[in-house]
Amino acid sequence: MSNLTVKTLLLARHLLPISPSNTVLDDHGVVVENGRILAIDSNHSLLKKHPEAVQVDLRHHIVMPGLINAHGHLAMSLLRGLGEGHLLDTWLREVIWPLETRFVSPDFVAAGTRLAIAEMLSRGVTTASDMYYFPEVTAAIAAELGFRAQIAFPVIEQRNSYSNTADECIHRGVELNDAYRTAKTIHLAFGPHAAYTVPKDTLTRVFTLAAEIGIPIQMHIHETRQEVRNAHEKLGSSWIEYLDRYGMLVPELQAVHMTSLTPEEIQRVAERDVKVIHCPYSNLKLNSGRCPISDLYSAGITVALGTDGAASNNALDLLGEARLAALLANDGTENPSRVTSEQILESATLGGARALGLEAETGSIESGKAADLIAIDVDNPGLQPLFDAHAQLIHTAAANQVSHTWVEGKLLYENGSHIGLDVNEVVATARTWRDRLST
Amino acid sequence: MSNLTVKTLLLARHLLPISPSNTVLDDHGVVVENGRILAIDSNHSLLKKHPEAVQVDLRHHIVMPGLINAHGHLAMSLLRGLGEGHLLDTWLREVIWPLETRFVSPDFVAAGTRLAIAEMLSRGVTTASDMYYFPEVTAAIAAELGFRAQIAFPVIEQRNSYSNTADECIHRGVELNDAYRTAKTIHLAFGPHAAYTVPKDTLTRVFTLAAEIGIPIQMHIHETRQEVRNAHEKLGSSWIEYLDRYGMLVPELQAVHMTSLTPEEIQRVAERDVKVIHCPYSNLKLNSGRCPISDLYSAGITVALGTDGAASNNALDLLGEARLAALLANDGTENPSRVTSEQILESATLGGARALGLEAETGSIESGKAADLIAIDVDNPGLQPLFDAHAQLIHTAAANQVSHTWVEGKLLYENGSHIGLDVNEVVATARTWRDRLST
Repeated sequence: MSNLTVKTLLLARHLLPISPSNTVLDDHGVVVENGRILAIDSNHSLLKKHPEAVQVDLRHHIVMPGLINAHGHLAMSLLRGLGEGHLLDTWLREVIWPLETRFVSPDFVAAGTRLAIAEMLSRGVTTASDMYYFPEVTAAIAAELGFRAQIAFPVIEQRNSYSNTADECIHRGVELNDAYRTAKTIHLAFGPHAAYTVPKDTLTRVFTLAAEIGIPIQMHIHETRQEVRNAHEKLGSSWIEYLDRYGMLVPELQAVHMTSLTPEEIQRVAERDVKVIHCPYSNLKLNSGRCPISDLYSAGITVALGTDGAASNNALDLLGEARLAALLANDGTENPSRVTSEQILESATLGGARALGLEAETGSIESGKAADLIAIDVDNPGLQPLFDAHAQLIHTAAANQVSHTWVEGKLLYENGSHIGLDVNEVVATARTWRDRLST
Repeated sequence: MSNLTVKTLLLARHLLPISPSNTVLDDHGVVVENGRILAIDSNHSLLKKHPEAVQVDLRHHIVMPGLINAHGHLAMSLLRGLGEGHLLDTWLREVIWPLETRFVSPDFVAAGTRLAIAEMLSRGVTTASDMYYFPEVTAAIAAELGFRAQIAFPVIEQRNSYSNTADECIHRGVELNDAYRTAKTIHLAFGPHAAYTVPKDTLTRVFTLAAEIGIPIQMHIHETRQEVRNAHEKLGSSWIEYLDRYGMLVPELQAVHMTSLTPEEIQRVAERDVKVIHCPYSNLKLNSGRCPISDLYSAGITVALGTDGAASNNALDLLGEARLAALLANDGTENPSRVTSEQILESATLGGARALGLEAETGSIESGKAADLIAIDVDNPGLQPLFDAHAQLIHTAAANQVSHTWVEGKLLYENGSHIGLDVNEVVATARTWRDRLST
């Protein structure tokens, strides 16, 4: 009934198409067929024009585009919350990297990816970007589960359980891109870790190849204040200036974190149309610094949101991320309206799609796009009364209780139950990994 | 089966008693009778010692004390999220006060209070403090629903739909206290709005009477930077100094908000044992300033958490409040371990009880206290794997999906359903109020 291959009407109480922006269509729905959105209209008209279509009654719900988690490390969900109370550098060196050295394997990645996708589907995320070891495992599982993913395959110089050289990483990544060239929901990208860990020659090769193949690059940039301070000591400039010097500030670059930016750097990022992915929870928890998104919005920069990995977040809850982004965006300015709920919700959906280069496919409810859709039941004491749907979704914690999640028209989650994913097994496997990781 | 009047064993996977602090008891449970906690022991021992008792199987759950929402305006849930994007002063003057003048009535308060309690029970809040018009209505509804409440009755100088003078407020409040003197779950307090709205003579009377009767005083203090600036202009000192001058900094004072504190003021608050109630979401959303809780903890001050009203929050989600408090406590310090998850969780429970003077009744799982308890099912992809229960509760959004809520041993919420509260009617009434308020 709810897999949208046959012509189906989703009849909603409030439809938030995201494009056009700041729009709430009351008593409107969408007609969907073969996983695509055919049209948006009033429920009344839809019922009259398509009497033969299957109906899904969401007349107590908000229906909106699926959320886009533009930066994460899915398999790290198995390390959820490990190493509380450290700054990024110590946390990586003393907690995360030693565990990864001992434990990361295709099995680890498979279990962690399933866990992450299960959590995200229950929270209305329909697309996520991943950057981790064994990207072929992540890609295969996302494809199997019908989840939309950008797989930003790693480019790592140091030998590890996945690869021996950066060359090998690039070779395997390019092969992976070939394998998924016609896949509907799997999208490849280069994922070099950071300018401070990947040498210039390798980065140059990555950017050249990415342009040739026509896929984007996702990279951590200005993740912490300390990283920026170190750059000034080492280079006499910031990493932004360094990347620009070598022609690496391009529209296909997805710059993750971006704390400690100067006004000149923001201007440069805007001129080069670099996309910015803001991970407020992880940045705040690790005390890394803050991405100045109100200034980025003012400069016209595309801002997307990411949870980062569950090891540092500790959740993959994109509406929660949006909530925190909204609160922090105006913090300290004595102007609580500088950034609006509408802008933040756009970053959580269409902004994410634009950042990943997927805006023709997803991110808004528009004819021709994929039916990547979610519903939220608003007949809930925590969501009533409802005066302003955008603000309610951002500021009311109950809004993260998503009732339905469809990707490409396929119903993957409904009222607490996953469809096509054995959640008991996923949880049991996570518990087994807990015991292994704790030894 | 689950009303804990007959002797009942709650058999938990992880028991967090909160006192002693930093403790997680695996495979432990509690024995409860007549709404009181009799003992804590391993599940194994409990089953052996009490073979005749009723069993509640929570062996996939965390069981912990109910959360305490130490500051709110329950009926304002009907104004949820109204007036986005203003500073406190404009928001009150242009949005909230005009609406309150037109609409606040006993019916409004009844509907809003039911809505607020329904939301809080579903989020594991077992005790809340209220400060609003028609406190007799709020008290009656909380009592009817079996919810634990501190009713901080208002003391307002200006004529309004509830009262004509501060005298009348005080008179009615004292009568209300008499009426509930033997009630188990209703606790009265004085609720003068603020030092800048209530004249000194009235405040003096409030503090004198409160001491005579033996009930606490809850008051907004240093809610915004602007309030503090105004005090310096008007008084040549802060409100903290002003209150101390007149002997009003007492252990029975619950000081809500407390932004913009100097080190000397923090020292004075610590010496006087004034309790502080931190409302991070409301403060941050309205850009009011920040309560420096890491410094308050260091000074040994009791810190509790409050949501404030849903008009400015926009949720009554105390675990969400705890999450934000944890993130903000270390913000800007480059020391992510200055305040720990354990401290914040204590503020959300036992700290709240201490602030409200209810620590003999609630706030921790200890023999003799009321069975104000909650359970959270941790067999959930968003909560696995579980390495550290305190951190998981604070930092993992899925933790606010509470499965059971008991107050005084009475089961009031279980797996999405309210018990003894018609949630459909509550939601329908809220929707009716929405239409009236929107005209």
